[in-house]
Formats: sequence, C-alpha cells, structure tokens
Amino acid sequence: MTFTPITPDHIAMLTQLAGASNISVAQADRELHSRDQSYHRGHPADVVIFGESAEQISRVVAYANSHRIPITPWGVGTGLEGGAIPVHGGISLSLERMTSIITVHADDFQVTVQAGLGHKDLNQQLAKYGLFFPPDPGANASIGGMLANNAAGIRTVKYGASKDNVLKMQVVLADGRIIEVGSRSVKQSSGYDLLHLFVGSEGTLGIITQATLKLVPIPQHMSAMVVAFSDVESAVQAVVALRGSGLDPAALEFIDAEHCRLLREAEGIELLDYPTLFIEFHAGQASWLGAGIEMASELCRDMGAVAIRATTDNTERLRLWHARHHSYEILVRANPNKKILVMDVAVPISAYPTLIAYIESLRPTVPLQITMVGHAGDGNIHVEFAYGDESEFELAMACDHQIVKKALSLGGTATGEHGVGMGKAQFMPAEHGEAYDVMKTLKHALDPNNILNPSKIFIDEF
Amino acid sequence: MTFTPITPDHIAMLTQLAGASNISVAQADRELHSRDQSYHRGHPADVVIFGESAEQISRVVAYANSHRIPITPWGVGTGLEGGAIPVHGGISLSLERMTSIITVHADDFQVTVQAGLGHKDLNQQLAKYGLFFPPDPGANASIGGMLANNAAGIRTVKYGASKDNVLKMQVVLADGRIIEVGSRSVKQSSGYDLLHLFVGSEGTLGIITQATLKLVPIPQHMSAMVVAFSDVESAVQAVVALRGSGLDPAALEFIDAEHCRLLREAEGIELLDYPTLFIEFHAGQASWLGAGIEMASELCRDMGAVAIRATTDNTERLRLWHARHHSYEILVRANPNKKILVMDVAVPISAYPTLIAYIESLRPTVPLQITMVGHAGDGNIHVEFAYGDESEFELAMACDHQIVKKALSLGGTATGEHGVGMGKAQFMPAEHGEAYDVMKTLKHALDPNNILNPSKIFIDEF
Repeated sequence: MTFTPITPDHIAMLTQLAGASNISVAQADRELHSRDQSYHRGHPADVVIFGESAEQISRVVAYANSHRIPITPWGVGTGLEGGAIPVHGGISLSLERMTSIITVHADDFQVTVQAGLGHKDLNQQLAKYGLFFPPDPGANASIGGMLANNAAGIRTVKYGASKDNVLKMQVVLADGRIIEVGSRSVKQSSGYDLLHLFVGSEGTLGIITQATLKLVPIPQHMSAMVVAFSDVESAVQAVVALRGSGLDPAALEFIDAEHCRLLREAEGIELLDYPTLFIEFHAGQASWLGAGIEMASELCRDMGAVAIRATTDNTERLRLWHARHHSYEILVRANPNKKILVMDVAVPISAYPTLIAYIESLRPTVPLQITMVGHAGDGNIHVEFAYGDESEFELAMACDHQIVKKALSLGGTATGEHGVGMGKAQFMPAEHGEAYDVMKTLKHALDPNNILNPSKIFIDEF
Repeated sequence: MTFTPITPDHIAMLTQLAGASNISVAQADRELHSRDQSYHRGHPADVVIFGESAEQISRVVAYANSHRIPITPWGVGTGLEGGAIPVHGGISLSLERMTSIITVHADDFQVTVQAGLGHKDLNQQLAKYGLFFPPDPGANASIGGMLANNAAGIRTVKYGASKDNVLKMQVVLADGRIIEVGSRSVKQSSGYDLLHLFVGSEGTLGIITQATLKLVPIPQHMSAMVVAFSDVESAVQAVVALRGSGLDPAALEFIDAEHCRLLREAEGIELLDYPTLFIEFHAGQASWLGAGIEMASELCRDMGAVAIRATTDNTERLRLWHARHHSYEILVRANPNKKILVMDVAVPISAYPTLIAYIESLRPTVPLQITMVGHAGDGNIHVEFAYGDESEFELAMACDHQIVKKALSLGGTATGEHGVGMGKAQFMPAEHGEAYDVMKTLKHALDPNNILNPSKIFIDEF
C-alpha cells in the first residue's frame, strides 16, 4: 500500500478546494485529530481539512483520489477502536463544523442533520418536538461517527442500534460522486440496500455527510429497577426470562459484582457486591409502569433476586441509574494511576451465561483488575481491564483476544458496537470466512485506490 | 446481453450436478415456474432445477456461471413484480423442496430455516414455542422469497419488514462460493453489512439458501378497532396522530370508501362506505388493551371519526379483520370478468394525504374501478385496478406510472414492499440517481457474467 506523500503543492491545491479557513497544518490541530478515546496509538494526519458541505468534501476527495492521498474521516474522536486515527497520515477530514439540523420532519418523526452534529446536542434541540433519537453510546458522539460505526448503547434492546434508526444518508464516494442512499419512506424495497452498506463501513467506502434519522416520541413515563442476584447465572437467566416476558424493557443492563463493589467503595453508591441488573421501562401510561415493575419483580424473585429496588419517580430513577451511566468515569477515577482498556464482544443471549462464566474463569489467571458492564438484553458485554505498564497492557490484550475467540466460538461477534477499526481487524477472517473476501471485493469496487480510511476493518494489504 | 442456449449436453451435466431427481424439463414444470401472481407476462425456463442443499446449488451455479447460463431463483411464485420469472430462459432454480426448520433457538427467539419454507408453515410449527415470525405479506410466501424481496405486510408498523427480522443468512454467490452473512448475535458492528445487501437484492447478487430469523413472543392479548371517517384527510390525520401517541399499534391499515362499498356489497361485511382504518394492538396484559382502545377512540373521535367498533374478544377481532385480510380475494371474486392490477408505492407519512388525494383525483379520469388498501401506518398504499382487455390494461398502467412519479416527487419510493422485479425497474434511475450506478457497480463486482436473475432491478443491458 503506497500513498503519495503530501507536498506543499498538494496543500496549496487543497487550500483552494477546501477554502483557506477550512484547512490546517498546525501541530495542535494535527495532534487533536491524531487519536480517539481508545488505547490505540495515535498518528497525526499531514493536514486537517474541515468539511463545510458535501460539494466541498467532494472536491477534496476527488483530488485526493486522483493523487492517492489517504483520507480518514473524523467526527468528534469518541471512537474506541481507532477508527478515526489517520494511520497513514494524509488528510484528516473533520466533520466537526457540519453541525446543522437541516429539517425537522416532525409529522414523520424524522430529522435531517449534518453528519458532525452530536447526538446529545441533537436531542436537546429535538426536545421541544417531544421526539428523540434513541441510540446513545454514552459520549456525545457525532451522528456521522455513530452511523459509520453502527454505534448502539443502553437502549438498543428496545430501540435498536444506529443502523435501525436511520432512513437516508448523503454519502461522498471515493471518486467524489455525491449520492443519496435510502429513502424518507419508512418502507422501501427498491433496489439494493446501499444505506446499510455504508452504515457501519467506518468511512472505508464513503464519507457520510448528511443523514435522515428516525425519531421516537419521548416516553411519557419511565421506571427504573436495580436488582441484585446472588450469582451471575441467575442474573443472566433473569435477562432471558425478561426478554421472553413481552415486557419490552427499554434498557436491560448488567454490572458484575466486582464493578458494583468498586462503585460502592468509590462513590458510596448504594449497590450490593452482587451481579446486578439495571432495568428501565418506558410506557405511554403511568399505570402500565406499575404493572411492569410488578411482573418484572416477580420474575426476578423467581430467578433468585436477593434485592430489588424500583421506582417510577423521575428523580429517584436518575439517582438509581447514576451508577450505570457513570460507571466508566467512576472506574477511571477509582484507578488514578492506571489506564482502562474497554473491550466489546456480543453473543446470542443463550450463550451469555457461558461467555460471562468464561470471563470469570480468566479473572484468577490475570493479575489485573477486571470488571464487566454489559448490555445484557442484547448479549453484549464490555470487559474493562485496568493496566499500568506495557507488560500489564500485554496481559490485558492477551485476555481480550481470548475473550473474542470465545465469543466467536459461541456464534457471537468480535464487536457488538465499538466497530472494527484497528483493534478487531485481525478477527475479521475468523468471524466472516469467505464473506470477508466479499467485503474486500466491495471495497475494491468502490474505493479502488484505497484512499478512504486505509488499514481499518481489513488487515490485508491492498 | 447474450446467454448460452441450453443444449442436451448442458442438461446431462446439470443432471449429474443436481441429481436426477432434482431436475425437470417437463412442460408442466417449466410452465408452473414461468409466472408469478402478477400481471407480468410469463416466460418458461429451459430447465427447472430443485435445490436440495447449498452445496448442490453451489455446483449448479458454478457450472451455469462458467457456461453463462442464466439462473432465476424461485420460491413459491407469490411475487407481484415478476421477480421469479425466468425472462431469459435458462434455469429456474426452485427452493420449494428446501423447507426444513434446521434449529429453533427458543431462548434466543431465533429460528434457522431453509429458504423454501413458507412463513405460514413456519409460524404453525413455532406456535408451540410461543413465538412467531411477524412479517406477513398475505400469501404463504417462502422465507427466501420474502427476504430476497424484503416483503412486509400489515404488521410492519410494529414489527418491521423482512429486513428487520433476519439476523443471518447463507448465500450462494454467482461463482458458487457459499458464504454466511450476518450473525446470530443481535448486535454486530463487525465489517460491512452484507446481510442487508443480499436482503432485497431479488436474487440478482446471490441465492439465499438458509436464514436465521428473529422471532417475537406471540402477543398474549390483542384488540381490534374498525374506525370510519367522513373523509380521507381525517382518516390519514388520525394515522399521524396515532403514530405520535406512543400507543404502538401492531397494525394500522387504510381501506378507501370504494373498497369498503365493494366489500359490503359483495359479502355483506358490516362496513360503511367511508374511508376506514383497521387498527390492532398487541399487549402483554389484558388491562393495557382497554386503555389503548380508549385512548385511540378518543383520538379518532377528535379527528372526526363517524363510527368506531372495537373489541378485545378474539373471535370478534378475527371477524372484524376478515374484510381486511381477505380484501384481495373479495375484490377478485367481485370482478369475475376482470383481472386485478395491484400497484405498490410508499411515501413519508406526512405526504400520505397528498398522495391519496392525488390518487382520488385520477379516479374520474380513468373509466376503471379503482380501489385502495394501504398499510397507512407505514405510508404504503396499494392501488388496485380492475381491467379487462388490453386497452384497459394500458389505462391502468398509465395511471400506475403517474402514481409512482407522484410518490417519487413526494420523497417516496417506487415500491414499499413488492420489490422492483420487472415492473419498477424503469423507475430506478429516477428514484436513486447516481446511487443506481453504484448498484450496478456492485452487481458487476459480484455477478460479472450477469447470470443471476438478469433483467430484474436493472433496465440497462450489461
């Protein structure tokens, strides 16, 4: 894979194409766009270009394509697998200035936005319509980044991942063509589903510049439950039972005993040192919540719950969920001299107990603090390793790899929501078999010069 | 586009590859596989091959590919846009013998089936698990056909289309490779979404041989409502309001006044000659249904409903829905000397009143019986033309084309659920713009000899 080194002539031409106010070779800008929130080693681009429109991006991309200059799209840098790191230098194409809401289609429960808008900022502006965009990866990720990565989060169990909440996108292809994929019609059986080909393609097939998102009415009534179980097996069997009950939880989260202990010790949060489920229900009528809590409580008691707290009061609900929503920050604060490696795998729900038991079995073999939080309702788990020096990092990575292999052996995936980026590319052949070659065929067909986010998703040289 | 005419040598070789009991050149078999349920002119294949396994299909496809013999996959022939018609002859590859349930993953709410299984047969066998596969296009379409076509139906408003209810597929590619796409993990952000590339590709990119489907618990409690409105505008505004209410209907169907009159006159069904909504709710608790009906009734009255009937009784519910479920057969019976052309478009819900008003405005200009039924909650409408001779057919087609163009101008799609097949291919460039060229690029990349279902989706010669 050989790319053209950037020259002053390139910069001059790119300045013309992008506009002088939209380009920077300043060390600070290059540094800022060189890393994400993961453990992956950063690498600066030669130049940072700020997108301002699809047309301007199209000009830049077409130029880069004809000169074989690599382009790595950048949202806000909240990724966890190095997807936005410009490992071959070239151009970091930042969408961070494209933050407009273009149209609110309130009657259609849709909104069309520029790709750089943060989903939290979007939801703040949508509140007055009584609507919201449900996927929530935690950080204020950009919509474009969420779509490129198929981000998910705690409410996926009810509302789906990013891919389930998008209808249409504008995409700039490697050769500069600007296309529209999908439809504002919620139903469409018209030709190939290009929309979902670009969603989750991590900027390797095209650059998402605009998206029309599905919205849902802000739930009128919400309840929260925090349920402790004596052992992981019971907790996970309760998850399966809850999913089968028809209760349709809006969140169904698991925090292991170790993490609960840490949260309690670090912040005095009222949690028992037991595997704990955090559950949320959304309903159109307040009375439905009470019935839901009653059914869920009975079910959890049947499964061996040792403590149940539940509320339909909003303040109390937020207090109960505080520990879950801030578990990562609390973990970081509790380990001031360590870094945290967060890994992500997902399996079919029936394999969740086996996967969790396997992770438990690794614990005594590794002299590191290992904690778990997971979107249990989706079979998704994040294992967090606190590491200090390089040798501890290597121990954590070895463990990470063993867990990925276990997940794959259970019919699961190397990544449920963090994406492939740099960290998971090595597992793609094992996960996809010959379908991995088909992915390469598509990459070649749409980006023959491999300028779009090279060395992501694929391990092989092109 | 030139294909190799089938010779006795080809037949001899195909007989070896497929097995002697899986191949037929009999007139009756060729005739049976020459047409679907649409108005499209049939065309026989030279040979019908019955798939029995992915490996056997792989051998047949690889041979056909190396000899440039076209292959058109066949499910059970319930399509409505000619997708399964082998317009270039060659091989009709029937999946109708591949009807096994491979594994029921009850804890995961998943089932893995062979592609030829009918969705009604599947649901009958799943009933004992308390689970069902929600997409229901009416006819007992095969799972493979539903996926190839992204079929939908009346419960899509709550449960989604076929594409939303599949997790994993086995696909035979044009060169004979057998790949697995997707994952049994409900969450996956691992590389390109090949699953959704093959879903809806109508057999032009690969042949779906096996699928793992998402299932949902059979709802414990259901209610039905039939609501008549004085005018279409009010009915459709009620649809928008119902979607915004958080009531989450499981079906939200529209039948126009003309169709209601026909149903009443033909079968004595208790309907008023008014635009009518058919509504269904599913709930985990019986008490929730009553509250749902109450809220929905109030809302419909606010929107100008002139008559409301509602029930939570199962027998009464089926009776109320009879007219909707059998509207097509009743229409056919009511027009013994005519054929029925059913067309399919969809628009964003906010454009639904405009689209329906436009269709109403065409009515006086065409001397044909025009009726409408639609999945209103999805912005999807089917216009039915009763035609006799060729000149009436041409009038109907002209009308059909005007409606498609109107739907496209409203930000809609040429097909919400019937697929492109032969009838809608002409509208693909208008609907997709340059994205249509990207579809062609993908077709070239995955089926360079254009043997898979040629002349479907694409109008251009390859």
